[in-house]
Amino acid sequence: MKLAALTLTLALVSTACARTDDQPPPVDPRSVIEKAASRTAVPPNIIVIVADDLGYGDLGSYGGQSIETPHIDSLATDGIRFTDFHSSDSVCTPSRAGLLTGRYPARMGLDVPLMPEEMSLGHSFTVAFGYLMGKLGFIDIATKGAATGLHQNEITLPEALRLAGYATGMVGKWHLGDFATNPAHNPLEHGFDFYFGVPYSNDMHPLPLYRDREELLPNVDDQSILTKRYTEEALRFIDSSRGAPFFLYFAHTFPHRPLFASERFAKRSEGGTFGDTVEEIDWSVGELLAALEQHDIADNTLVVFTSDNGPWYQGSPGSFRGRKGQSYEGGHRVPFLARWPGQIKAGTLSGEPAINLDLFPTFLALAGLSLPNDRSIDGANILDLLRVEGATSPHDTLYFYHQGELEGVRSGKWKYLRSINHYVWPLPLNKKAGRISEHTTGPLPLLFNLELDPGESYDLSAKHPDTVSQLAEQMTTWETSLAANPKGWKQ
Amino acid sequence: MKLAALTLTLALVSTACARTDDQPPPVDPRSVIEKAASRTAVPPNIIVIVADDLGYGDLGSYGGQSIETPHIDSLATDGIRFTDFHSSDSVCTPSRAGLLTGRYPARMGLDVPLMPEEMSLGHSFTVAFGYLMGKLGFIDIATKGAATGLHQNEITLPEALRLAGYATGMVGKWHLGDFATNPAHNPLEHGFDFYFGVPYSNDMHPLPLYRDREELLPNVDDQSILTKRYTEEALRFIDSSRGAPFFLYFAHTFPHRPLFASERFAKRSEGGTFGDTVEEIDWSVGELLAALEQHDIADNTLVVFTSDNGPWYQGSPGSFRGRKGQSYEGGHRVPFLARWPGQIKAGTLSGEPAINLDLFPTFLALAGLSLPNDRSIDGANILDLLRVEGATSPHDTLYFYHQGELEGVRSGKWKYLRSINHYVWPLPLNKKAGRISEHTTGPLPLLFNLELDPGESYDLSAKHPDTVSQLAEQMTTWETSLAANPKGWKQ
Repeated sequence: MKLAALTLTLALVSTACARTDDQPPPVDPRSVIEKAASRTAVPPNIIVIVADDLGYGDLGSYGGQSIETPHIDSLATDGIRFTDFHSSDSVCTPSRAGLLTGRYPARMGLDVPLMPEEMSLGHSFTVAFGYLMGKLGFIDIATKGAATGLHQNEITLPEALRLAGYATGMVGKWHLGDFATNPAHNPLEHGFDFYFGVPYSNDMHPLPLYRDREELLPNVDDQSILTKRYTEEALRFIDSSRGAPFFLYFAHTFPHRPLFASERFAKRSEGGTFGDTVEEIDWSVGELLAALEQHDIADNTLVVFTSDNGPWYQGSPGSFRGRKGQSYEGGHRVPFLARWPGQIKAGTLSGEPAINLDLFPTFLALAGLSLPNDRSIDGANILDLLRVEGATSPHDTLYFYHQGELEGVRSGKWKYLRSINHYVWPLPLNKKAGRISEHTTGPLPLLFNLELDPGESYDLSAKHPDTVSQLAEQMTTWETSLAANPKGWKQ
Repeated sequence: MKLAALTLTLALVSTACARTDDQPPPVDPRSVIEKAASRTAVPPNIIVIVADDLGYGDLGSYGGQSIETPHIDSLATDGIRFTDFHSSDSVCTPSRAGLLTGRYPARMGLDVPLMPEEMSLGHSFTVAFGYLMGKLGFIDIATKGAATGLHQNEITLPEALRLAGYATGMVGKWHLGDFATNPAHNPLEHGFDFYFGVPYSNDMHPLPLYRDREELLPNVDDQSILTKRYTEEALRFIDSSRGAPFFLYFAHTFPHRPLFASERFAKRSEGGTFGDTVEEIDWSVGELLAALEQHDIADNTLVVFTSDNGPWYQGSPGSFRGRKGQSYEGGHRVPFLARWPGQIKAGTLSGEPAINLDLFPTFLALAGLSLPNDRSIDGANILDLLRVEGATSPHDTLYFYHQGELEGVRSGKWKYLRSINHYVWPLPLNKKAGRISEHTTGPLPLLFNLELDPGESYDLSAKHPDTVSQLAEQMTTWETSLAANPKGWKQ
């Protein structure tokens, strides 16, 4: 058993070495991002709220019947609701890397959920393969993912928005590097002025609580405090930021399992403990919205609510196939609501495809900033989708990755899946589990018409071989371009 | 590898021996079923059409958008459509055993899809574990399931209906015993006057075609002929049965994979090859309905359409969770349509729970026959559900089995799952694969409120511990009663 663990560790470490040695040093964002000279108006405050493992079908505004989410749903009533919005990956870490940088996480080696750097290998086995391989016990060997965190040479949303005078704050789950072990991964090293939260997912142990660089608790023994504490800190940040525009990135810990709601919300929801945590998140959203009213800044604040990926054990993917960790829509398609009174028409519905990579270019445009001129940005500015009725998506193509493996491509109504694996980590063993699920998917590749068949039930690859060839070629072209310049640096 | 195969075979054979040695001899149905003396009217003809692996969401009448099924949908328009109808198991063999006997298949050792008795072990490995274990090659060792077929002491629908003067015919997939190897398993030994079809699923090889006891083809090389041939033979049976009432059990081979439609239907459907096969089945249903009109017997014929279990690789479970081989609703809940002009009100919708075990007692009641007095029948007469508006289900309880393991129970809106495994056979290896899927389901047991949460997204076991205890006890009581008298023989 020790031998197997050692082999696995060596494999992971060698992968890490292979991936991380070609990184250029960080650049000063000011040297690659331009400020529009003509811009005079004060840009809006921006609040991005991201739930963890919330599914497409969990909110009332998305057809859910079990969980009361009046405050979140009010964003749809007072703003816009997207029905074809995607996360940039089907698991936590890469999805967040994409959201904050506007670039596909595969560019930065952030393919899998990052594990705590000092978490025992035994623990990860237990989490992922407890039932498959029996109790392995704890084996104290440190392990690392392909990259240990977001590289300093990535430009994040807060780093860019700072150039336009934004105060930048974050509360909640980071999961882009274990800053408890390596302080270089702290959100404060990635553009945030203020941080309060935990370094990774709440099923990883120990789970320390930090304010800025200070460890407040070595482990959050009682996770039911988290949503309330996050909310208090977020309100404090909003309160302190009056005057300057602010960017708040609020990354909730729940409804990622294990599930804990505070006493006020426990056993209240018809959606069980999962629903309790979502109802507490809804309360939290209500508190933020009330604060905006109270400070009279609601009209100048863009509030966005979304999820990092599809639902995991519990939660509803709506009528989509698959769940977290799969390239089916259920793993990728997430709720996306945006409210900006006076700018986004109340009650708008958009069926246009968009992705969380779009937040980076969209918010930079809002702030009068150019895109960085030294790198490829994969997201697109969706301000028109938000504000102009009948606007069409800037996206020709969306890509679907599973644990760093490009699995599929979406173009218009067509979705092509070259492979389809399930989410189980750690990485090497996943490959084996993936094969089981590949079998249960049947012959590959798969071609779906999402317009007629959003549930991905009917493979049309035999009926439309030309579309298959075209999309397969598109994937190859993309792969070739990434192979030549994975990080997308421009000359 | 040979050693592993041998071990597996020995395990299977010993299981088979343990299960099949306590069987009483067959009884003459006449000695245990009474004919109602008062009955004078001629009972109706009965046609039961069962698709293979058709999902809840595949038909137009169930919300499907990709496949054209006007003839099948006409049964809903002209009759009744059920939204809470269940198969008695989530895989082929047991579901069919339940349908034909009215008894849970666990009573008769028919827990798993029967394999051809002379099919090589290597082939079953390839089918089930090809991607998991790599190419094993072919190993020529015969294997057997827990029971090799429906025991002669089970009373089937045709055996009973014969007592009321019915002519009984079957076309299609039997899968209740490999009659090519063992003629005692032929449908003609189980009450059918006429049979045309194949002994098992179309992914098993070789796939011989039979008429009655005669082998017409040693292997159906071109499966695209099957739906048309079945239909022709069914029409011939209907034609020949004029005068006496008839019972026709039409068990389609498709949309079970591998998928083949005849030239006329190939590449026609927006549901791909899967859809092509369903559209050909729809054509077939249209042919049967036209024949009834032509023979002027439509008004005296009850036509039922359903599926044996949820969709497998392709096909839509609607908005339910899970697929074939799982105790989630997606594996169990199936379309059920019934037309009987003048008796069933056109356009009726029923949301009451029912199960394919109900066909046996319902059809016996229609034919003026008592239930057999020597055994437990698990199904219930649902004639009132079919004919009386506002009638409520006779079922307090439905049970969910996976490969012979009792996984859950349904009572009213509550569904309790004590375990949840995925469908992979052969049996012993399945246990291992099952553990993976158990992990992906998260903590057990699970309690769902199907009324609010038909997608089984929210576990309410922490919120309603009393319901959990009550349902757990109900399962234990059921198990105890089955352990004491698995076959349900009455004293």
